Amino acid sequence: MVALPTGFTSFVTNIGIKDSSDDFTLVAADDVVSAAGVFTQSRFAGPSVMVSRKHLVDRRARAVVVISKNANVATGDQGMRNALEVVKGVAARLGCDPHDVLIASTGVIGRQYPIDRVRAGLSALPFPLPDHDAAAVARGIMTTDTVPKIAEATVAGGSARVVGVAKGVGMIEPNMATLITLVFTDALVDGTTLDAVWRRVIDRTFNCVSVDTDTSTSDTAIVLASGAAGSVDEGALEVALEDVARSLTKQVARDGEGAEKLIEVCVDSARDAEQAKTVAKAIVNSPLVKTAVHGADPNWGRVAMAVGKCSKYDDIDQERVVIRFGDQEVYPVAVDEAGLARLSSYMRGTDVRIHVSLNTGSTACTVWGCDLTDGYVRINADYTT
Amino acid sequence: MVALPTGFTSFVTNIGIKDSSDDFTLVAADDVVSAAGVFTQSRFAGPSVMVSRKHLVDRRARAVVVISKNANVATGDQGMRNALEVVKGVAARLGCDPHDVLIASTGVIGRQYPIDRVRAGLSALPFPLPDHDAAAVARGIMTTDTVPKIAEATVAGGSARVVGVAKGVGMIEPNMATLITLVFTDALVDGTTLDAVWRRVIDRTFNCVSVDTDTSTSDTAIVLASGAAGSVDEGALEVALEDVARSLTKQVARDGEGAEKLIEVCVDSARDAEQAKTVAKAIVNSPLVKTAVHGADPNWGRVAMAVGKCSKYDDIDQERVVIRFGDQEVYPVAVDEAGLARLSSYMRGTDVRIHVSLNTGSTACTVWGCDLTDGYVRINADYTT
Repeated sequence: MVALPTGFTSFVTNIGIKDSSDDFTLVAADDVVSAAGVFTQSRFAGPSVMVSRKHLVDRRARAVVVISKNANVATGDQGMRNALEVVKGVAARLGCDPHDVLIASTGVIGRQYPIDRVRAGLSALPFPLPDHDAAAVARGIMTTDTVPKIAEATVAGGSARVVGVAKGVGMIEPNMATLITLVFTDALVDGTTLDAVWRRVIDRTFNCVSVDTDTSTSDTAIVLASGAAGSVDEGALEVALEDVARSLTKQVARDGEGAEKLIEVCVDSARDAEQAKTVAKAIVNSPLVKTAVHGADPNWGRVAMAVGKCSKYDDIDQERVVIRFGDQEVYPVAVDEAGLARLSSYMRGTDVRIHVSLNTGSTACTVWGCDLTDGYVRINADYTT
Repeated sequence: MVALPTGFTSFVTNIGIKDSSDDFTLVAADDVVSAAGVFTQSRFAGPSVMVSRKHLVDRRARAVVVISKNANVATGDQGMRNALEVVKGVAARLGCDPHDVLIASTGVIGRQYPIDRVRAGLSALPFPLPDHDAAAVARGIMTTDTVPKIAEATVAGGSARVVGVAKGVGMIEPNMATLITLVFTDALVDGTTLDAVWRRVIDRTFNCVSVDTDTSTSDTAIVLASGAAGSVDEGALEVALEDVARSLTKQVARDGEGAEKLIEVCVDSARDAEQAKTVAKAIVNSPLVKTAVHGADPNWGRVAMAVGKCSKYDDIDQERVVIRFGDQEVYPVAVDEAGLARLSSYMRGTDVRIHVSLNTGSTACTVWGCDLTDGYVRINADYTT
């Protein structure tokens, strides 16, 4: 069992949102603590995102509640009233201001919560919260995930720990956040510092993953710091947070809907970070690259195609680009039949790394994704029915 | 049989590029005529695109040769020498300047032509060209297409005709052109006018189709005007060209790799054309929308998601957006179970039309795409192997 860091307790249960699996997750700090959050940029952001964004303006929070299997998005005024009712119900049980409660929700879009069942769940909340099992929290926030995502790290130079959970398998190309990730630490850090560190970490991790180019309406990445382990070095905290976030990011990519393989794309020798990330995303998002990886088809020309479609960069010159799979160069070197066989063999592994040197500068970026399978199509062709 | 317009002849044969199907297509005008072309913006554009772009600077051409089943892309200096050898071979047989011969090629990337077989094919070219069957031309340029794409129209006010062919089922999100489309007319029009009209038509048709968001390295859209039918009204010519190009565009979308349904997305009441097209493309390209259409899953929330991910437009307000499938409004109106059943029934058709009103202005755009199926995955997981 991975315990939550000192200063946090939890409660995970089923309140009947969709089926009998856990769908209500509450994690609370012992008191109001430093907090930071990054949220979806979607123009269809749901009430949960709106409420949490507002509640985090002061960089402080007491608790976060997650309802899974229903996104409460595109639900109008009724959806907002329901979100506020959940927040107020949790606050009343914890004895705190509703403004110190954060909320997140994912699942089907365009349906109201079964609010009678939600009310019954709120009225049955225990206090104090009985648990501190992070794995139960990771399971409680799952929707169509096949495995829970959890990661932990210690902050160098002391006893402070960082424990994170994440969920999400589809509708994943986060823009400034991810589906839902919750990270807890007992490090002592003020809210403003935590916010700055968290945004840098998210930009290098969750903002570099894509399962299917679709950006969720519910992306939420929250970190709470209880302070119970005392003060830490800011750089050491950032390293620990990034370790946890990167692990969760790769777990999300590997568990992408229908995914059988993790694809890691590194673009280096780029003009700047924006060029490196744009080209890397073009590769990892290409359905033709994703299907080739799925079938271990040594069709490396599709990577050339994906680089080529970044046509806004007129400094990208096909005569200077180098493409590698793993350690094997495939372009511009001529690949013979034996080379194609070796490439296909490499692509049959569960981890495929594509490495492109643009030779337009000296900046690098790594992004993660997954293969595109008939499983993805099957899962999504009948999600609500 | 659809005949080519007056003033054109053709020859289609197999020269052994990949298998025994037709892979060499030549269409020639009786003399040098007005011509215009639009090509891929890819940074990995192949030698065929480079040569044709250069040969069209004077807006005149005698013939176009298409080699299918091999893209001749990412093939370096040898690839360029091979493309020039094809152009020179054709010019020698027609008795014209090589500069008046255009070339296009699609198929696998990163492989050299089997140049000995290409040379044998060139040396066996008949002259004059024996045919004028546009359907044979449409078949000759196919790669993995399941049906040939052909369309014709007459130019109002006279006898001039427009006949076009196209190919392409995957790696299709043209940027300023499409895979390969060849359009022939016997209208009399100067090259400069033809070029301007052609660019406007392409922007409203082929630049509005997407099968899989992947932009080909070989996109080529060429029009040749023999002049044999005499002068025409420029507006009437544009209408006829657009009729042909739109028909071909929808044929390409409907025959997308693995596709079972045509998706048409109309976004109206947008701020400007760029916003309308960006939102429409976000919807038609969303793998979650495409899979929902495939499964007739009435999960309209995914359209809201796709609109929402166009987060750069802060004037898009979820409280003013209206979403319809066919004639049925699904948002913001509340859809009950009967409404979802009606929506699912509509989505079981072969043509699904999604209509979004942004209410940020008064501009509209229509784009076309197809559903995402396990067939797409199967086709592309083992294309070269």
